[in-house]
Amino acid sequence: MAATGREFFTVKTVSEALTEFRPGHVTPVETVSLDDAYGRIPNTEIVARGPLPGFDRSSVDGYAVRASDTFGASESIPGYLRVVGAVRMGASAADSVGVGTAIAIPTGGMLPPGADAVVMIEHTADATADTIEVVRPVAPGENVVRSDEDVGVGGALAVGGRPLRAQDVGLLAAAGVVQVSVHSRPRVTILATGDEVDPPSTPALAPGHVRDALSISVGALVREAGGEPAPPVIVGDDDGALRDALTAAIATSDVVVICAGSSVGMRDQTADAVATLPHTETWCHGLAIKPGKPTLLAHSQGIPIIGLPGNPRSALVVFRLIGMPLVRRAGGWTVAPVVGTVRATLSRDLPSAAGRLDVVQVRLDLGAGVAEPIFGSSALLSVLTAAGGYVIVPEDANGLSAGEPVDVIPYG
Amino acid sequence: MAATGREFFTVKTVSEALTEFRPGHVTPVETVSLDDAYGRIPNTEIVARGPLPGFDRSSVDGYAVRASDTFGASESIPGYLRVVGAVRMGASAADSVGVGTAIAIPTGGMLPPGADAVVMIEHTADATADTIEVVRPVAPGENVVRSDEDVGVGGALAVGGRPLRAQDVGLLAAAGVVQVSVHSRPRVTILATGDEVDPPSTPALAPGHVRDALSISVGALVREAGGEPAPPVIVGDDDGALRDALTAAIATSDVVVICAGSSVGMRDQTADAVATLPHTETWCHGLAIKPGKPTLLAHSQGIPIIGLPGNPRSALVVFRLIGMPLVRRAGGWTVAPVVGTVRATLSRDLPSAAGRLDVVQVRLDLGAGVAEPIFGSSALLSVLTAAGGYVIVPEDANGLSAGEPVDVIPYG
Repeated sequence: MAATGREFFTVKTVSEALTEFRPGHVTPVETVSLDDAYGRIPNTEIVARGPLPGFDRSSVDGYAVRASDTFGASESIPGYLRVVGAVRMGASAADSVGVGTAIAIPTGGMLPPGADAVVMIEHTADATADTIEVVRPVAPGENVVRSDEDVGVGGALAVGGRPLRAQDVGLLAAAGVVQVSVHSRPRVTILATGDEVDPPSTPALAPGHVRDALSISVGALVREAGGEPAPPVIVGDDDGALRDALTAAIATSDVVVICAGSSVGMRDQTADAVATLPHTETWCHGLAIKPGKPTLLAHSQGIPIIGLPGNPRSALVVFRLIGMPLVRRAGGWTVAPVVGTVRATLSRDLPSAAGRLDVVQVRLDLGAGVAEPIFGSSALLSVLTAAGGYVIVPEDANGLSAGEPVDVIPYG
Repeated sequence: MAATGREFFTVKTVSEALTEFRPGHVTPVETVSLDDAYGRIPNTEIVARGPLPGFDRSSVDGYAVRASDTFGASESIPGYLRVVGAVRMGASAADSVGVGTAIAIPTGGMLPPGADAVVMIEHTADATADTIEVVRPVAPGENVVRSDEDVGVGGALAVGGRPLRAQDVGLLAAAGVVQVSVHSRPRVTILATGDEVDPPSTPALAPGHVRDALSISVGALVREAGGEPAPPVIVGDDDGALRDALTAAIATSDVVVICAGSSVGMRDQTADAVATLPHTETWCHGLAIKPGKPTLLAHSQGIPIIGLPGNPRSALVVFRLIGMPLVRRAGGWTVAPVVGTVRATLSRDLPSAAGRLDVVQVRLDLGAGVAEPIFGSSALLSVLTAAGGYVIVPEDANGLSAGEPVDVIPYG
């Protein structure tokens, strides 16, 4: 078939797509309040202007001392220190520690002048009303968090190019950084194409019609990748309408997604519409992946355009593998997220052709440690909804055998 | 020490806490638009009122036929069929397929009356202007997605008690379900306690003061667990103020978190304030976990109260392990999320006491497959920010040895 031959003229592997298809557009930087910064991507490393915690703190409940006063102390020959005061939380000590004296201090309290260590209260006993026994020696610095031990001046509070995690916003709060420069969320326009496609809210469908399932589910993956889906657009089977919609999308978006029809005609129409856009280069017409071969990747002035296969399952598989990294990069991610997996035993053979990456949905029986492949048409969303995760059969493998251990990537 | 003894009077293991501490409060149900339903928790299974896709569809580009007309067809002895029409996307066929005839059909097209299978276009050739050769037989139903093959009437579109994923909202959209009953997001009040604690926006700290790092980072984990943190509240070291704040929090929240001071005195004060609340039961005063032992778990009329250790690292470790599951359950999760891990080799020994669960932050070198433990005071947030993930040394292990394979749970 000429049409099929043309459609798949430029087939790339998934790893080629991930490493070589790198349109350059990145969203601009904006300033957000720290309260809204969780999950956002700083454009650059954020450094500390002062030390943290900012003062020497006790890390235990006990007595601030001069370490040398405790040297040689033991259960049998305790050292004796006179208690000359107590540190209150959130206040500097009124007194200082001299030779032979100690000051009571709570965890987090500010080390008083003269002290260089803290003896844990468990290693002391009351001797007289104002004297304690110390039964273990402490080294200088022991049980003390130094003024700059958490972060020194100029030290990194958070790295750029990676989303801020719970601990990162915490460290920024500790340092008093309450405004953060981050990349704006990539705006992603999703074009659903096809005369048969109606909005999800359509109460009764005309014969042969379906509701648009992809805009909302691709939009969910866009959000997961830190992007913001634009309101969905449904475009009929009309060259001009698709080209107009694409032109408008490129002008207003950071990433453009076309949910193409699955027929050869629709795929051709998508490829033609993309090819006739100004300053646009089509990078591939097909991916060596199953499901998902009819994927188109292009870029227009640095803005990535992804033409997804029309079958919903294929489209979601491809968008997760290829589209989400494109959204992340457009949003300033330079550090790839670490993907955790669950080890399980394959319940049956997974045939696959070498040179092609296969994505196979599985039911996960965590108790038994078994991954059960789910088969079905790439048109079926129910294969995805029944799955707890998926297995990747890599390009260089000729399938996997029943009983083999596999790494399952969990869905959400 | 009497105070320490009392504080840890009731120590439970992490697994006991996870399985036995189950306060009953669950948030009420609300109706949200499908557009806002991604990540939300349906309170019950959502079933299909009609079949999906709703009509027999072709899953390939080709010709709709009667399968029996193709039986015996081969490359050497092709079958001949007269093409009597073409199906358009989004329309019912104008014609029907009779004996010896075929109708062209695109992927996703509605199967015309009379046809029971589709021959892929690749397995046909044009014979004359209106006749095709068929070189391979098809079985009845071949290359057809049946009307109810994705979901039958009454079949599950989405399960209850688990967040809706991208594919789930897609299937709901396909079925025209645009309003969904979900649990409301649990509102979580976070009380930061201590005279030394100031808001993050404080420009210059008084001696011995620190900025509140926990409210924002615990709040981030609350969001990750599907909850909504209430505006943070800082409470000074005053019994009455803490009791008043707790009373107000319980009246307006689904989960209450107290970021306790780390000193024995502050822990006692927290425990006392909780103990004097009406209808409140303290479930444990300590957890067999490092870091994080001084954790308090209580419930008041079904609402969980978590007293976190004052050291920020301990607090975040405990909230991730114990607090997030409590928020999820309050938000209607009945199915635990699947946690993926990354396999790596430990770069050095991890000592641990049996009977205690240890959480150890690690740097992840994915290239080398190595996990390098990060040590440091439990007061240091920088141990968490430097980490790519963490390793759990289980309660029954006496530490782990360098060179052992470990499962690293990635951070975000």
